[in-house]
Order: sequence, then structure tokens, then C-alpha cells
Amino acid sequence: MGETTAAIEVREIGSFFAAGRMVRLEGLPLRERVSTPGGPVYRDDPNGEIVAGQMYVQFVRLMQPLGAGPLLMWHGGGMTGASWETTPDGRPGWQTFFLRAGFDTYISDAVERGRASWAPYPQVYPQAPYFRTAREAWEDTFRFGPKGSWHADPARRQTYPGLRFPVQSFEAFLAASVPRWGCNDVLTQSAYDALIARIDPAAIVLAHSQAGNFALTCALNAPERVRAVICFDPSGAPDPAHANAERVKDVPHLFVWGDNWRENDFWRGSRPASERWRDALCEAGCDVTRIDLPERGIAGNSHVLMGDSNSDEIAGLVLEWMSSRGLVHGDR
Amino acid sequence: MGETTAAIEVREIGSFFAAGRMVRLEGLPLRERVSTPGGPVYRDDPNGEIVAGQMYVQFVRLMQPLGAGPLLMWHGGGMTGASWETTPDGRPGWQTFFLRAGFDTYISDAVERGRASWAPYPQVYPQAPYFRTAREAWEDTFRFGPKGSWHADPARRQTYPGLRFPVQSFEAFLAASVPRWGCNDVLTQSAYDALIARIDPAAIVLAHSQAGNFALTCALNAPERVRAVICFDPSGAPDPAHANAERVKDVPHLFVWGDNWRENDFWRGSRPASERWRDALCEAGCDVTRIDLPERGIAGNSHVLMGDSNSDEIAGLVLEWMSSRGLVHGDR
Repeated sequence: MGETTAAIEVREIGSFFAAGRMVRLEGLPLRERVSTPGGPVYRDDPNGEIVAGQMYVQFVRLMQPLGAGPLLMWHGGGMTGASWETTPDGRPGWQTFFLRAGFDTYISDAVERGRASWAPYPQVYPQAPYFRTAREAWEDTFRFGPKGSWHADPARRQTYPGLRFPVQSFEAFLAASVPRWGCNDVLTQSAYDALIARIDPAAIVLAHSQAGNFALTCALNAPERVRAVICFDPSGAPDPAHANAERVKDVPHLFVWGDNWRENDFWRGSRPASERWRDALCEAGCDVTRIDLPERGIAGNSHVLMGDSNSDEIAGLVLEWMSSRGLVHGDR
Repeated sequence: MGETTAAIEVREIGSFFAAGRMVRLEGLPLRERVSTPGGPVYRDDPNGEIVAGQMYVQFVRLMQPLGAGPLLMWHGGGMTGASWETTPDGRPGWQTFFLRAGFDTYISDAVERGRASWAPYPQVYPQAPYFRTAREAWEDTFRFGPKGSWHADPARRQTYPGLRFPVQSFEAFLAASVPRWGCNDVLTQSAYDALIARIDPAAIVLAHSQAGNFALTCALNAPERVRAVICFDPSGAPDPAHANAERVKDVPHLFVWGDNWRENDFWRGSRPASERWRDALCEAGCDVTRIDLPERGIAGNSHVLMGDSNSDEIAGLVLEWMSSRGLVHGDR
């Protein structure tokens, strides 16, 4: 969208924390600390209460919202709410797109990351986090190129043909990574459920990757509190053998998929779960749409759809779907 | 300020990362990971490049900014940019106050915390972080009550007489805490310097607690890039024995202090460094103002001035000072 002269008419910008509880740390040795360069040394007792399990939520509320509900934007694994802001190459992100389309936005940092903080291991979290490497980001998670295509020298990196991700901004993209634990799914689902419970009117949830499963499960847990679910490249989904898709038959679902997932072990292994849940939703009579971008002739999208060069085009497809489902007031 | 009917006319909301560089992790064992509840298990190699030392910066640019420069808002130790948003008890925060006063705001999460992420120890950071306990927050850092006044049971907690902090929202406040390392001052200063270098026109820096030292040092490192420095309860400052205050004699400085610091070991030990630097600035002919709130008859402020019940009153004093220094266009 570039620089535009029309103002976004904002009523309020703010934030809050959802979920979270006091936990007590015990048995830790006394420590010394310095608060500021050159400052005095203090002895302190690290044992005591801290808050764990909280989620950070930042909202931008418009003067004249047009959405049937606020738009909750949930980042993927090893990422934060920054995913939805400026793209790695400096274009306005999807937060701006949907604000300009008239939606109040609520962008969260899930449990364990970003402004939601994290808790010590092994005292609270059972294990250490992992740090996604550049190679893993490039070749596995985000599908920029095939196995062996990452190289420390930018000039020697290879991509899938026609890749839409702005790889010249790869380092800026990687700077937005945060550590990730493999043990916090229950805490995280619980925090998302708590968030859904307090948003009024019922929210539209737009979820990327790891958040897809959390969003689909939130809808199952509180179908009357979720106006619609939109998943981009979900890495997982509820299992129809254990979850009843009929519970969400009145919640419209949209699945959007990027390109090159068949070339990738991680995504070839992950996508079937989402497809099974989609089938179950369809059988339950749910209004389900799948936009497979390559099938629509839109090739070359990575897993970071919101950072790709055609990010606004994809957001436009989503907005069109929302409009057709009555999620934009005044449209129909 | 509560709910108001006037819109904030926003031109752009976005973010970027400053500083940061690729570092290589080596010698770590292979690991297994699960990406989503019930999903498949992958073996992965945690060795490779990650980004470390980056800082996250979120900006809100107005259609008609009135500031002589954008307002950079820097949080304290163990905190993030969320400090400047909604107060713990749900009132509009200083970000909103200064947006409504006409300033573009740039709110950062410094190295090691929030959306800036953190790097593994001992591979990149030399040591483990510490987690501020509720007791330390209450009795030491934020000066809500004297030694021994914290209790796990809210009904049994005690405060300083007339405390302005909304202690009924203490848990919400504590949820905004993030872990803190004692070893990242050089990385952090470098990231702040990098931020200052890219903001145009020269920025007004508003810094809380730990950030005070970083802000005062940024001004020393690049006086032509800093339009003014405003410090709230700085926990440290440059040492006049090693830094030349004449370098910043053309940069107006404002120091604002809360109450009850004499009752507190940490603050009784920390404040003299800032006072020495203030004296050096005065001797160098710098335009320096100190607002000691109790001396002005405003008693009971904690170290979290931006969360206290009179936060807008304090912001108003700052705005008045800015206006008197020609930092608000159209004022004089």
C-alpha cells in the first residue's frame, strides 16, 4: 500500500495481559547483581513468587470499526506479534492492511515469548528452549529453498524458483525470531482460551502456522465466542478422532496455503493433520473454504505469507472472503 | 484521560529491528522437537547461525506531528515497551498521552527482552538471567513498601503511606516483567546508539530507570542526534571522572524523581551517581532541570511513575518542560 495520505482514525492504543498466575521459585542460591554499568553490587534472594503463563495482547481500536468483531492476529512458533507489523523489507504489514480495512486489531505475544515473557527452567518450564537457526528457517520452517540451499554467504544462498519472500531482507526477518519451548502447549492453549473469553463481541481469529491449531481448538472450546477462523499454513489441527467438528459447524473457516510444501519434509508431514480436520469440518456441514495459492495460479509463496512480496494481494483475498461471509459491516 | 471522542490521526504503525548480527552456535547435540500438539517428531540440528544483539522498535507516526523530534520511550530493567502502554489498572498510558500531545512515538524492547528476543547462555550470553520476584519488585525495585511489607496474601501486603501505585493491580503489573541478564550492557548500549543513529530528525529520549544511563550515554556518544534527554528515576549515569559533560552542554536534560527512595537500600545506593552526573552537566553549562516530586509537594510516587494514579499529571509536567524548551512546535 506504500505511503498513503489518509489517516487511520484511532480511538485507543493499549495492551493487557491474559491468563498468568503466581508460581513460587524455591531452593535457588543467593545471587549478586549490578543494575547499571558501574553501579553498586547488591546481594539478592531469587526465591519467591513470579508470574508465569501470561499472554501479552496489544490492541488498536478504531473510531469507526467496520468488522463484525475485532481481528485477533496470532503469530507462529518462534515468532511474536511483530509478524503482523512492517514486513522484513519495510512495507506496511497486515496489521496496517486490516486497520485500513476497518478492523480493530488485537495482536498477541503468546506464552513463553516476546512481551509475554518466559519462566525459568527446570523450575517452571520442564526443559530448555531451542533457537531456530538460519538454516532451519530457510530450508525447513519457512520454505525459502530446498535442503542444502542455505549458506552463510548471502550470495551463495539458493531459493525455490520464483520465491516471493524478499530474501535480501532475510537477516531482518531472522532478527524477529524468539526462542521456543516444546513443552508449553497446554499453558498456551489456556491463555488463548482466556483471551477469547474476554473479547467482546466475538472475535475473528487470524492465525499463522503453530497458532492454527490453537485457533481451531479455541473455536471448539468456545464456538459462540469465535466469529470465524482464518488459518495460514497451519502446522497442526485438532484430531477428528478426539474432537467433534459439529461443535463448530456454525463457525466459518478459511484455510490459506503457500507453495512448495510438497518439497519439504516438515510440511509434508504436518499438512495432512489440517486436511483431515478440514474434511471433518466439511462433513459436519461447516462453511469451509480452502485457498491453495498455487492451485489458484499464485505460485512462489513461502510459509511467511504476510512477509512475501504479494502480501497485500493475499490479505485482499482474505478480506474478500470475510466480506462474502458478512464479517465486514456495510458490505451486505 | 479515559475514553475520549477525538481520534488519534495515525499515518503509520510499524516496527523494525536495530543492531543485531549473525552469531554461530556450535557443539550442541542433535535434538528432537514437536511443532504442534499431537504433531510428528522431527530430529534437528541446533547448530548454526542465529541473530543476537538486536533491538525491537515499534513506531506510531502521526499525520500532523507537533514534536521537534520523535519521542523515543525506553523501558527500565526487567521490563519491556509495554511499560508505556495501558497502566496496570487499565488507564491510557504515556504512549497515548504523548501521541495525543502530538509526538510520534518509538517504543523499543531493548536487547535480551520482549520482542527483541534473547540469545542462549553460555554460548552467546555468558550467564543465566535472573527473574525478579514479587518481593523484590514490591520492596526493592519499585518502592511500593518497605522491607518486609510484601506478602503472598494481597490482604497482608503493606505500602508506604499515600502510595500512588494501584497495588490492587500488582499481579497485572508483575505479569509485564521479563527476565534480566547482568551481562548485556555493552550490547544494549550499542543497540541504543544504532537506534539513535537512524532516527531523523534528532530524537527526544524519555528513559525509565535502567534506560537512564543508556540514554545519557547515547547523548554523550552522539550529542547532535539527541534533541533532549528525560530521565525518570535513573538507576545510573555516566561517571564525570571518565565522561566529558561539555559534549552534551547543548542538550537539555530533565530528571524526574519519585518518592521514598531514602527508605530503600537499592535507591539510596543508586541515586548519587545520577546526581553527580547532573552536577557535572550543570557545571558544563548544560540546561538541566530536576523535578523532585516530593519537593514539589507531590508525595507517594513509586518507581513506576508511568503506572501511578497521577501518571497523567507527571506526564503533564514533562510536556510543560518540553514546551518551555521549544520541543513542541507551535508553542513558541
